[in-house]
Amino acid sequence: MPHLDPYFKEVDGLQGKFIDRLKSAVAIPSISSEDERRTDVVKMGEWLAEQIRAVGGTVELRQLGKQPGREHLDLPPVLLGRYGNDPNKKTILLYGHYDVQPAQKSDGWATDPFTLTMDDKGRMFGRGSTDDKGPVLGWINAIEAHQKAGVEVPVNLIMCFEGMEENGSEGLDNLIEEEAKKFFKDADVICISDNYWLGTEKPCLTYGVRGCNYYSIEVSGPGQDLHSGVYGGMTHEPMTDLIKIMGSFVDPDGKILIKGIDDLVAPLTDEEAALYPPIAFTMNDLHESLGSEVSIYDNKDDSLKHKMRYPSLSLHGIEGAFYTPGAKTVIPAKVIGKFSIRTVPNMEIDAVTQLVEKHVNEEFARLRSKNKMKFNVVHCGKWWVEDFNHPNYTAAAKAVERVYGVKPDMTREGGSIPVTLTFQAQLGKNVLLLPMGSSTDAAHSINEKLDKRNYIEGTKLLGAYLHYVAGELVHPSK
Amino acid sequence: MPHLDPYFKEVDGLQGKFIDRLKSAVAIPSISSEDERRTDVVKMGEWLAEQIRAVGGTVELRQLGKQPGREHLDLPPVLLGRYGNDPNKKTILLYGHYDVQPAQKSDGWATDPFTLTMDDKGRMFGRGSTDDKGPVLGWINAIEAHQKAGVEVPVNLIMCFEGMEENGSEGLDNLIEEEAKKFFKDADVICISDNYWLGTEKPCLTYGVRGCNYYSIEVSGPGQDLHSGVYGGMTHEPMTDLIKIMGSFVDPDGKILIKGIDDLVAPLTDEEAALYPPIAFTMNDLHESLGSEVSIYDNKDDSLKHKMRYPSLSLHGIEGAFYTPGAKTVIPAKVIGKFSIRTVPNMEIDAVTQLVEKHVNEEFARLRSKNKMKFNVVHCGKWWVEDFNHPNYTAAAKAVERVYGVKPDMTREGGSIPVTLTFQAQLGKNVLLLPMGSSTDAAHSINEKLDKRNYIEGTKLLGAYLHYVAGELVHPSK
Repeated sequence: MPHLDPYFKEVDGLQGKFIDRLKSAVAIPSISSEDERRTDVVKMGEWLAEQIRAVGGTVELRQLGKQPGREHLDLPPVLLGRYGNDPNKKTILLYGHYDVQPAQKSDGWATDPFTLTMDDKGRMFGRGSTDDKGPVLGWINAIEAHQKAGVEVPVNLIMCFEGMEENGSEGLDNLIEEEAKKFFKDADVICISDNYWLGTEKPCLTYGVRGCNYYSIEVSGPGQDLHSGVYGGMTHEPMTDLIKIMGSFVDPDGKILIKGIDDLVAPLTDEEAALYPPIAFTMNDLHESLGSEVSIYDNKDDSLKHKMRYPSLSLHGIEGAFYTPGAKTVIPAKVIGKFSIRTVPNMEIDAVTQLVEKHVNEEFARLRSKNKMKFNVVHCGKWWVEDFNHPNYTAAAKAVERVYGVKPDMTREGGSIPVTLTFQAQLGKNVLLLPMGSSTDAAHSINEKLDKRNYIEGTKLLGAYLHYVAGELVHPSK
Repeated sequence: MPHLDPYFKEVDGLQGKFIDRLKSAVAIPSISSEDERRTDVVKMGEWLAEQIRAVGGTVELRQLGKQPGREHLDLPPVLLGRYGNDPNKKTILLYGHYDVQPAQKSDGWATDPFTLTMDDKGRMFGRGSTDDKGPVLGWINAIEAHQKAGVEVPVNLIMCFEGMEENGSEGLDNLIEEEAKKFFKDADVICISDNYWLGTEKPCLTYGVRGCNYYSIEVSGPGQDLHSGVYGGMTHEPMTDLIKIMGSFVDPDGKILIKGIDDLVAPLTDEEAALYPPIAFTMNDLHESLGSEVSIYDNKDDSLKHKMRYPSLSLHGIEGAFYTPGAKTVIPAKVIGKFSIRTVPNMEIDAVTQLVEKHVNEEFARLRSKNKMKFNVVHCGKWWVEDFNHPNYTAAAKAVERVYGVKPDMTREGGSIPVTLTFQAQLGKNVLLLPMGSSTDAAHSINEKLDKRNYIEGTKLLGAYLHYVAGELVHPSK
């Protein structure tokens, strides 16, 4: 059993510095989906590179050129880092992202989203705190604590931290393909900390994620917005058409109404069904993280299956319509509906898109409207499933037990992390998801947070994992 | 026939000053539906009062107290003005409004919405240029040109200019009721310039307007916005419910699907049907003002009937959902759908609201969702129809023929002007709508404009009307 106590002690001792590090990261509004924030995304990448160099790592900020379809924008650089280069050590590839979802105080945040703010319960609120700046900094914290403790990092580390994860990871797949046999060639396994525990107390290891096909529908007609009193009744209104189409996708109970989608879903096997009952998760956990009791199913197992291994369809919003408070009597001239489908085995991206496009075209044709409709694929990321009997997982399970004193749940994640698939396909190495945050962290929402406990114990976990995986890769215990 | 040439000559001579006056008015962003613009609405009222005093009128800015339901806001004052007080003259009550619809350059305006900008075709672009600052200033221009020409204004004028027309005319009805037998008691007839010609060449007199019932539906469930990957499939999503309800109101061809609404509509009589064929309006006019050919009907008469004497339902937008460009994988926690119904004889406000609320409640119940739904009445204004054989209309028709050389179309308007009804009911006097702008002015839209011709000839028209109505009220010609 690795001698980790001196390392753990240093992590505790350095926690103030680690929290300041996260505060500095959250202060940079690196929103990858907003043009005017692109410079902040780049700034964040450069700041992160400095942090890695400061602990003795080497870093290249790899430029990816213009953003496809939005050539006025440069893609943010991918941070390619290395720590340690000992041919006698195994090498772990770490992935994370330094960009964040959009956030404005006016969305309803209790505190400024870009000022990390800790409350008396040790909850650290701020955009990116848990998704994914906290976990990324966790690796740097782990290296620093090893050095301070005089404990050698038992593996070589290769880092791949991107700045477009919240916006389709544009350009990353090409880079991974190019570097698979070069910069990434020494990687024995891959570890990604970019998801969440199922509940708030018990850690988990994640061996699968859903994919995401994100679409938009643009309906346009009038040359400009119109007065609904002057033109209402004589004009085909784009909103009427769009709302009809958007209303045809899914039932309130989550059932997807697009013909053929269900046929693509792999049937639930008895072996797989048996995985769910042991998972430590309650409807109370779910209701707490929802902030209400609007769950579709009344039991834990069905809820988890529909989060982990069945598809879902969400309507995100409409661009171009009236969206502020107050009453505007307008007929919007052009509206763009946004929606996405979470995909699971065996739904192929293009097969899903063909069914969705066919459905949208048929629904619009039924309306016999004179407006114009355009269906767009915004971005797609495939689902991923991994072998959880691999030493990579055995090591992580032991690290969890060492730090938290419990065996982790083995889970699949609802949110897509497309890069898992690319690493698996291009490097042919085992990929592990080792989450730091908990189910109440509200990633992508207002008041996103990371608990201090998850950040500090999580830093211990990431460090401990490096020791156990070094051992398991040489002498597997199963 | 009144001797008007000297007056007309002065209007032409003063046109530069009149355009500068409109420029100054447009520069004040008096948006009544946005809290943070309320001070600008008040500022606009004070500026307008100064303009009237400068031509010798007397003005009171009548305070109306707090805005009901939004008590942190004071209602903008109603401008009560007087010009002339000769017991031997007839008295005309003028109504208009000095507030405007929301506007931002980013909505797609070609020019700054609050900088009046004239192009080489004499189109003066700016929010409020045609709705309703241009027409209101037309009355002041007319008084000034009379004075400069040494022609006596043949009637007394009472002015009622409000600052909440675009936001439900809050507080105005009470004021009119209170002042009916006081400040407004001398009024012989009422004239309102706050609508538009049907086309671009031929003026019209308007004897009816549709009403407007504006509603919102709030659907909420989760305690905060959620990550669609983490929670999609296990949660009742407010957007799914709202879109289903909003999709149940109206067909793309404009047919309202709310049970019982059609039964409230007065049947079309033969006499009424005969009014439509003579109207100078073509499908080309409609398509030009639409900026496209997305008209529901292929002929002028049906198009006009559905604009003037049949109801319509428009979906305006959704508050609380994702509305910016880009891709956000969010499940919005609370969304508010906005829609309105344009009403016609004999649809009573409360009867319509009861049918709509019943429909909304039934649709939501059918969804069997665990989310909460709240139906809200935002504001309602009733339809209005007037006797167009009254001297008030005869006078206006003669003024149109004098200034433009054509007989006006007799029309009913699509957009609601609730105050017409209040004046009719409280004062028991004939109300005339005498529009200045044309059908291509794009009120409530981006690139709202008023043609220089309509502004200057329109100022002549308003002045000429005062002379003809003075005569007709004493010796009716029919």
